[in-house]
Amino acid sequence: MSETAVLQERAITFAGNKIDRADQLRVNPDRLALAWADSRARLLLLEGLDPVPPRDGILATAPIPPGAMLSDHALLGLREDGSPLFVSLIVVKTDEPPTFPPKVWQVIAELNLDEAALYGGARSLVDWHDRHQYCARCGAQTHPVKAGWSRQCGTCSAEHFPRTDPVVIMLAEYEGKVLIARNARFPPRRFSALAGFVEPGETIEEAVRREVWEECGVRCGRVDYLFSQPWPFPSQLMIACVAQALGDALTLDEQEIAEAIWVSRDEVRAALAEDENAAFLPPSSVAVANHMLRHWLGE
Amino acid sequence: MSETAVLQERAITFAGNKIDRADQLRVNPDRLALAWADSRARLLLLEGLDPVPPRDGILATAPIPPGAMLSDHALLGLREDGSPLFVSLIVVKTDEPPTFPPKVWQVIAELNLDEAALYGGARSLVDWHDRHQYCARCGAQTHPVKAGWSRQCGTCSAEHFPRTDPVVIMLAEYEGKVLIARNARFPPRRFSALAGFVEPGETIEEAVRREVWEECGVRCGRVDYLFSQPWPFPSQLMIACVAQALGDALTLDEQEIAEAIWVSRDEVRAALAEDENAAFLPPSSVAVANHMLRHWLGE
Repeated sequence: MSETAVLQERAITFAGNKIDRADQLRVNPDRLALAWADSRARLLLLEGLDPVPPRDGILATAPIPPGAMLSDHALLGLREDGSPLFVSLIVVKTDEPPTFPPKVWQVIAELNLDEAALYGGARSLVDWHDRHQYCARCGAQTHPVKAGWSRQCGTCSAEHFPRTDPVVIMLAEYEGKVLIARNARFPPRRFSALAGFVEPGETIEEAVRREVWEECGVRCGRVDYLFSQPWPFPSQLMIACVAQALGDALTLDEQEIAEAIWVSRDEVRAALAEDENAAFLPPSSVAVANHMLRHWLGE
Repeated sequence: MSETAVLQERAITFAGNKIDRADQLRVNPDRLALAWADSRARLLLLEGLDPVPPRDGILATAPIPPGAMLSDHALLGLREDGSPLFVSLIVVKTDEPPTFPPKVWQVIAELNLDEAALYGGARSLVDWHDRHQYCARCGAQTHPVKAGWSRQCGTCSAEHFPRTDPVVIMLAEYEGKVLIARNARFPPRRFSALAGFVEPGETIEEAVRREVWEECGVRCGRVDYLFSQPWPFPSQLMIACVAQALGDALTLDEQEIAEAIWVSRDEVRAALAEDENAAFLPPSSVAVANHMLRHWLGE
């Protein structure tokens, strides 16, 4: 599958980041200092980890304020006009209880696609710094290095890199239907694709088969990769696949899965069209599962 | 691409783990204790992180010694006969300086494929525990929970899961040739595929294009996924792809890449056949790059 075609046709949220990550600047203190001092340099503005409400689909940015310290910031990269874009690594989080779907999804849906992608990467990076202030090897404090693309321990010198956790998300297919499930924490009628973290020691395809088996008791054979999505809650790489099921009898993991159903193309089409008689509510258009169902319809 | 076919035909090292991970036991203390007390339960034996030299391609195991504590062990899963297999999370590392290629590759090459896969997953897990004894959020000590599949902080209660870092590894293709490179730390004549970590905020395909651009100055268009490999040094998910290059002019990142060359199918065939007149030495058969070159030949 051509990913260019996928991006154009399906417009996966958080894919399509156009920024030049300019990784050579991260390890060159002189060039990094020049970028920081560049009169065109801007800061991406966040409210906690969420975007400041955008105007006309564009993320809010500001000039770098006087007195700001480069060492508290990450270089996101160079924009198309060559201007450097930074983000602060100092996060002021709110204590609002989480909701499902999260309120931030509504703000993200207002962003242009390339702006949403830029935001997603920045959010993952900033959140990782916030949750990794100490050295997992010795327990001492760490500090950002390489323009915010890693952290180093002041005591044992261990270097720690941002996490990106691979997650498989899959539609199991059997006799013209696909398997979707309602997670125990989803609201009524809301279904999505099965998903789970890839564990050490398994391939993408093995993880797909294990998850379908663990969550729904269905064995799968052939697995095909579709496309991927960076997912910034907090930092997953969603790897979307279709798996060929070897049967349709279900045995649910009731801790995880409240309901699972096999749905036909007509049922998926009705759900995506938000038909009020549809068998289920589809996954959010922000989620890759929505694109997986559209892809399965051949849209 | 059917992964079943890939596994059968190409026998990727570290893929094909047959163990039942039995994840439901990890969160069920009673069932876990029964598995630990099972007279058939065995320990996978390691020397530091390396396998004890195998006999007839089989990993060395032993009964659980009297006085061993479940809390110092991870449950790798249930073997095909239902017997539980554990591994100790207490690592005694040697101070031997690393070599390239690592000596352990020779031992791994002696293992049956499913044993190598079992070993790879165990090594990644044990090594992760060894390097993550402290809480990245607050700096306090953590301890293994969930049968060794996560760690919890005794102070702030944060839970930390094993890392699996997605890495893209790719052949850029142009007019019947593919691009291979000699990393600055490789010995003379030894070439492999380009590779790099997926960063927060990018898709697999975007990471492929960025790495080929950063390391060799070549722009790519369409990207196709081939297959994947869990790589236990220390814990990567290698995501193998072919990218269509838009030109063949090279500009190398000289920090990373000592040499890069475009090679034809005849040149790749000679190298894989270990022809003494071959243009280069191929990547080890343990590495997924070897399988990528074989796949490109249509083998």
